[in-house]
Amino acid sequence: MTTTPVRNAAVIGGGVIGSGWAARFLLNGIDVSVYDPDPELARKLATVLDNARVALARLLPAVLPPEGRLRVAASVADAVRGADFIQESLPERVDLKQDILELIEAAVRPGVIIGSSTSGLLPSQLQSRMRHPERFVVGHPFNPVYLLPLVEVCGGHATAESALTQAEAFYRSIGMQPLRVRKEIDGFIADRLLEALWREALWLVSDGVATTAEIDDAIRYGAGLRWSFMGTFLIYRVAGGEAGMQHFLSQFGPALKLPWTRLEAPELTDELADRIAQQSDDQAGGLSIRELERVRDNCLVSVLSALRRNDFAAGTTLRRYSETLAVQAPKTTAPIDESQPLALHAATVLPDWIDYNGHMTEARYLEVFGYATDALLEHIGAGPAYVARGHSYFTVETHIRHLDEASEGERLRVTTQLLGGGPKRIHLFHTMQRASDGAILATGEHLLLHVDIQARRASSAQGDVLRAVERLAKAQAGLAIPMGAGRAVGAPVASDPRASV
Amino acid sequence: MTTTPVRNAAVIGGGVIGSGWAARFLLNGIDVSVYDPDPELARKLATVLDNARVALARLLPAVLPPEGRLRVAASVADAVRGADFIQESLPERVDLKQDILELIEAAVRPGVIIGSSTSGLLPSQLQSRMRHPERFVVGHPFNPVYLLPLVEVCGGHATAESALTQAEAFYRSIGMQPLRVRKEIDGFIADRLLEALWREALWLVSDGVATTAEIDDAIRYGAGLRWSFMGTFLIYRVAGGEAGMQHFLSQFGPALKLPWTRLEAPELTDELADRIAQQSDDQAGGLSIRELERVRDNCLVSVLSALRRNDFAAGTTLRRYSETLAVQAPKTTAPIDESQPLALHAATVLPDWIDYNGHMTEARYLEVFGYATDALLEHIGAGPAYVARGHSYFTVETHIRHLDEASEGERLRVTTQLLGGGPKRIHLFHTMQRASDGAILATGEHLLLHVDIQARRASSAQGDVLRAVERLAKAQAGLAIPMGAGRAVGAPVASDPRASV
Repeated sequence: MTTTPVRNAAVIGGGVIGSGWAARFLLNGIDVSVYDPDPELARKLATVLDNARVALARLLPAVLPPEGRLRVAASVADAVRGADFIQESLPERVDLKQDILELIEAAVRPGVIIGSSTSGLLPSQLQSRMRHPERFVVGHPFNPVYLLPLVEVCGGHATAESALTQAEAFYRSIGMQPLRVRKEIDGFIADRLLEALWREALWLVSDGVATTAEIDDAIRYGAGLRWSFMGTFLIYRVAGGEAGMQHFLSQFGPALKLPWTRLEAPELTDELADRIAQQSDDQAGGLSIRELERVRDNCLVSVLSALRRNDFAAGTTLRRYSETLAVQAPKTTAPIDESQPLALHAATVLPDWIDYNGHMTEARYLEVFGYATDALLEHIGAGPAYVARGHSYFTVETHIRHLDEASEGERLRVTTQLLGGGPKRIHLFHTMQRASDGAILATGEHLLLHVDIQARRASSAQGDVLRAVERLAKAQAGLAIPMGAGRAVGAPVASDPRASV
Repeated sequence: MTTTPVRNAAVIGGGVIGSGWAARFLLNGIDVSVYDPDPELARKLATVLDNARVALARLLPAVLPPEGRLRVAASVADAVRGADFIQESLPERVDLKQDILELIEAAVRPGVIIGSSTSGLLPSQLQSRMRHPERFVVGHPFNPVYLLPLVEVCGGHATAESALTQAEAFYRSIGMQPLRVRKEIDGFIADRLLEALWREALWLVSDGVATTAEIDDAIRYGAGLRWSFMGTFLIYRVAGGEAGMQHFLSQFGPALKLPWTRLEAPELTDELADRIAQQSDDQAGGLSIRELERVRDNCLVSVLSALRRNDFAAGTTLRRYSETLAVQAPKTTAPIDESQPLALHAATVLPDWIDYNGHMTEARYLEVFGYATDALLEHIGAGPAYVARGHSYFTVETHIRHLDEASEGERLRVTTQLLGGGPKRIHLFHTMQRASDGAILATGEHLLLHVDIQARRASSAQGDVLRAVERLAKAQAGLAIPMGAGRAVGAPVASDPRASV
């Protein structure tokens, strides 16, 4: 087998899966030849490639290599002739795949590995008519191929181990997560699981129990969120609590006898329960249930927050819930004393706010100050409702001083002083303190201009908002100018707190 | 039935599910009484509540109401007496649940709804010995109850429709996504699907095909990522491409006859295929395949990026891939001309960078400048490898001027000028331009101190890094000071470009 890096790949079959492979190869800098008799091939490829370009530019900003060259080949032989790797993605028919594998072998260079995208046909059968079956591997991907990392790698009786390891190394080099299927079985591992769920779903529709939309909701608002990072076994192990997998099995073992699916379960013998518990222990990699709970919850929070930014599925549920809570939030009953800096925002330093220096990364300081600014705008009546009426404040200038570091889990509070305010501008000074000891971590000085959103131009604040700005400016006019206000970057300070970094 | 808001809830059964309910109720400001004979109840409740507090503080910063009060009750009657809503979460035994429902009914106020967390027992059976079965509903949640939104709501023969709608309204008010199970069936909808997958997984372990870890990987690196926001039907509809669900069914219908799971599929009659296609059309809500592909890809990119921040599962695969790409990235072959501002970073404005004003939110400017700073540090040899040796640069001061707006999808480029640099500090000036027309969008002026990471104190740059700083400072010493450098917030400028906002 060759061990040189793949520079030219051939893709045989240009449907959804074949096009997805072509896109993943191209965006990893590999030249690709595609063959499919479909006269619409070029157009369909271009569509998938457009999607892939947008997605990978977002996923991997600034690191992708120059795109490979795409060529639509005239025949199977034309496609595979110069290729270092072949990926076959034809319809799931054994005879068709066997025929095309013969055509591929007739034209391909010696030692080049041929991967098949079959979802579940047996590699021993597919390779049975090949002259060099040792080069044949299953590499079963998941749609969209350019985004999902999983690829199941499975050999037949005649496949060489070196072909499997090379295919795995290649797939890994283009960002994938190979899963070796050690025992050849119809449907491999993933599709057996997917197919069981899919057939149960078809029964539910067939029996009139639920619609396709209801069945989809039953997954995507619940177990599907967990499955994006933990499979069923680890999830159930964690659910078993401190007593772990054995406890879970003893509690839910009896349910295996209940008619909760049309699929009969295997007998949960002591031997099987022990095997599951043992494998589950190995899988947990020494993490305690408590640690696994934290990983699970952190991932769920991140995934839910990610979906909220897309305003889709559970993300929409979360957005609406959050908006309802915000409206219901009890306003402080005591009137706010405007003669002092206002304490309108607090936050907790989240795990993904930490950078490689082990402290809160700089952009998060401005994010927290941004929320504090939003809170001040809400206080003067210039919140989202004011924006909806066509007015807003845009920040035009910011100055941040970092005086101390913030660590994960620390509670922060921000107080806000108005340094100046008139019809067209607001001049703010935020002070961020560690809640536990009051240490000043950073200050933020900001100039905001009032704008007409339609015209995207400066304008004058309106009615109540202007009156609120003037009232607050007057109330705080007697406050001392805080240290560091009006400062340019690098200006000398007599006693510089930054000396302690 | 009562329609007053729920202020006091009773939770009967304090296992993983009952404790999860208690936590969700409490963090929504509801007082909770919990009964469970387990002597360890208080400790277990406290653990779950700790997890929930951390998770919800991250998920919903600054909007949660004051926490409700938790009380460990002495008996079922003691727990339910003052409650406005009851949630039962006992082990899955019909007789046990029926017995406790009698105890609940004997003490609860009239009209209060009783929800059961059963995963799949029939509500008609559970309510059969109740005096007021009309108040009984199934409200089946998913672990962790305080984070996952799904709750299946199902009534028995004797359940009042008003009880179902009130339970749904209550669950929705605490952030959940109720799914009405319209036809009473063992396992409802979700657990039929989960149980089919779970039993197939048990067969795979039992038959020695795969380990629990391999089975989990087969889900979490592939279909599980999609299932976090789209169920199987919509995913397959999109995979069917422009021809939609009918095409997918015609292509994969034959696979229903293959032995890809131990579960037999229903006959895919024309009537069933039509029904699925029709329901699938309704479900798509008028979105084209192209639009659905974009939603799918955007959600996948967001979910993968979220997992990367947690460095877990597919997020770890992505991190490693990205790091490999970064190392392989061809360095510019032409030597960089250090006598001019350096063009070391470019970025694209992503959809979730946009705020309610319809433009890139301010913290993202600093994030982009932060990446540009990282690129400059990499250029002078002070990247992650230098950090690993115990040295780093910390930003201590930042000044940003916003001169124009950035919109979704725009390509940005940053050039970087060294205003000064010595053994202990670097003084940088970034200029962010819109790539398409070169318009200056913002400038960032930053002061960085060299630090000893262990001591967290200022120190002197080492060897090659110090030489690189001095070389670059010398090469750029002849450049003009850019407009806006050395400026304090709000300082007057003769010709202020901000006048056009």
